[in-house]
Amino acid sequence: MARSFNFSAGPGILPEPVLHQAASEMLDYKGSGMSVMEMSHRSKWYEDIQNKAEANLREIMGIPENYKVLFLQGGAHLQFSMIPLNLKNSGKADFWITGNWSEKAFQEAKKYISVQPVASGKANGFRAIPEVDVSMLSPEADYFHMTTNNTVCGTRIRGCDIPDTGKVPVVADMSSNILSEAYDVSKFGIIYAGAQKNMGPAGVTVVIIRDDLIRKTEPWVPTMLQYAIHADNSSLYNTPPCYSIYLCGLVFEWIKAQGGIPAIQKANEEKAALLYAAIDSSTLYKGLVEKKDRSLMNVTFATGSEDLDKKFAKEADALGMANLKGYRTMGGMRASIYNAMPLAGVEALVAFMKEFEAKNKPGC
Amino acid sequence: MARSFNFSAGPGILPEPVLHQAASEMLDYKGSGMSVMEMSHRSKWYEDIQNKAEANLREIMGIPENYKVLFLQGGAHLQFSMIPLNLKNSGKADFWITGNWSEKAFQEAKKYISVQPVASGKANGFRAIPEVDVSMLSPEADYFHMTTNNTVCGTRIRGCDIPDTGKVPVVADMSSNILSEAYDVSKFGIIYAGAQKNMGPAGVTVVIIRDDLIRKTEPWVPTMLQYAIHADNSSLYNTPPCYSIYLCGLVFEWIKAQGGIPAIQKANEEKAALLYAAIDSSTLYKGLVEKKDRSLMNVTFATGSEDLDKKFAKEADALGMANLKGYRTMGGMRASIYNAMPLAGVEALVAFMKEFEAKNKPGC
Repeated sequence: MARSFNFSAGPGILPEPVLHQAASEMLDYKGSGMSVMEMSHRSKWYEDIQNKAEANLREIMGIPENYKVLFLQGGAHLQFSMIPLNLKNSGKADFWITGNWSEKAFQEAKKYISVQPVASGKANGFRAIPEVDVSMLSPEADYFHMTTNNTVCGTRIRGCDIPDTGKVPVVADMSSNILSEAYDVSKFGIIYAGAQKNMGPAGVTVVIIRDDLIRKTEPWVPTMLQYAIHADNSSLYNTPPCYSIYLCGLVFEWIKAQGGIPAIQKANEEKAALLYAAIDSSTLYKGLVEKKDRSLMNVTFATGSEDLDKKFAKEADALGMANLKGYRTMGGMRASIYNAMPLAGVEALVAFMKEFEAKNKPGC
Repeated sequence: MARSFNFSAGPGILPEPVLHQAASEMLDYKGSGMSVMEMSHRSKWYEDIQNKAEANLREIMGIPENYKVLFLQGGAHLQFSMIPLNLKNSGKADFWITGNWSEKAFQEAKKYISVQPVASGKANGFRAIPEVDVSMLSPEADYFHMTTNNTVCGTRIRGCDIPDTGKVPVVADMSSNILSEAYDVSKFGIIYAGAQKNMGPAGVTVVIIRDDLIRKTEPWVPTMLQYAIHADNSSLYNTPPCYSIYLCGLVFEWIKAQGGIPAIQKANEEKAALLYAAIDSSTLYKGLVEKKDRSLMNVTFATGSEDLDKKFAKEADALGMANLKGYRTMGGMRASIYNAMPLAGVEALVAFMKEFEAKNKPGC
């Protein structure tokens, strides 16, 4: 068995010890005589798994008691509908549009409420995070929506750069950088994230929601799209994606074993610094976004030649560094270095970048 | 490692060879260098997995070409909303109410369309399948809804017992008996099923839908709830629950290896016959539903004494026969004998039933 260094933007790399544990428990979870996949979601065995996953997530993120943690289905995409359908009160929301995903959230919300793009980076291809002019914000908005990390272009917004929205709750899509660096949960109304980057397999969406935002919806809202239904039933209104939640639980334990978010963040900053330094010290590679907004998770760069970019991704792949091809709209390369990417993976990439540059110097 | 005979109603037992294969491929799927959980859903590796799963499902169910197969999220519960939201045309539908699940489908559809219960077994606790008087059916209904197997009470409707609805499409929830016996797909407009009984882990819902029923919805319907979106994107509009789909694919292969649905049905009929014979030949146990409507998948019975029922389930559990306690509203016992339950499991249960009866004869 040879494991790749998997730079996929998502679903992405998972911690190897987690996969080992899942494999070893596949046929018999801790003497239960069955796989977690085969357990009734009403069984004590499974309830313990879900409760422990929630408790560990609360601990590592420091989630205050007045927030519920929900394990739902449908990905961030379904949240794009659920958020306006559940939070609708004044029927207005402000959007910070920083990439393809916040744009999608904006478009879907438009079906239900009146939405205002208070800042948008669309005109420059989302290559920088546009500043928010707080005087533009609607004080009566139901929420202010943002995306903390933009997977496609490779930008991110740190916790300290979130504007003061007053009483308006901040709703954040953290799909691609949850658990990668510290965010103060109490500054948010809702944090949501598809699991498939930093938490576990695709098919489970974590929603962290402040109690007062769990509201009675209009009656026609599909039952499965009502936060209150899931909150009242501890995410067990219907059969949850049990096995995916179990895997997330193993990842949360792995994060604790690494030293929690502070240690994870330090490692992520080191990995990203190494990679950005390799880009900045090169004459061949150029970063694709503004330096101040660079993501810790998705590092985008290009050679300036489409052919060379293709060659780079292909040769890297042959060496066991998979999925480095950039997103269609961005071109170039994208190295997604989620929590589970070991430093060795980034070191191998940097070594290859230097070698590739030496062999493919412009003009040679 | 000692595997239980797991009689859980769902999530339920999976074929052991499938779990072995999943465990062995956990860290490196066929030389890809990664787990299926870590693969981009846009990768060739994953596309092949999903395409193969679909092709195998089409083959074993004999799905005609004018039907799409969708792999969605949200379970049967989300289908209860999606079906009326997508099929709404005349705004009417007929419901055959044969258990808790068809009742739930009925209640949710009521939010969007005018629904008529054309037959209901509710008055007698769903212990028999009520006959449908075809003269009651609305010829202009958008659909006729039914549940082929009722997990809670343990009844089922065979393909040959489905009423002739004329041009009105039959929409069937097959969550708890899909792939367990032959149904002619061409007789249905939509077949839907949560995976967690006969297909794989919870978190993926299979929807088999005839092309002409994939309609333009009203614009306010959430994007993720529109069949057309998923059909147009081959279930890859957003990140699907890739790992769960992979597991379903392994189960489909296992079914083929058993000899397909005919062989599976034969085995299921043998297992069920053995268990029902043990009930009928006993003076202690009584079946809970009408004989003609007995399910092949969920066998319900009781001793007539709550204490004895509890003792039965507890002692069976200690012997490695798990989850035999009946559903809350039914009491007694429920032995769910899905496709993956080996004959040996049923034989062990029957042997225990006899032993338990000998030790606990009424009046002794």
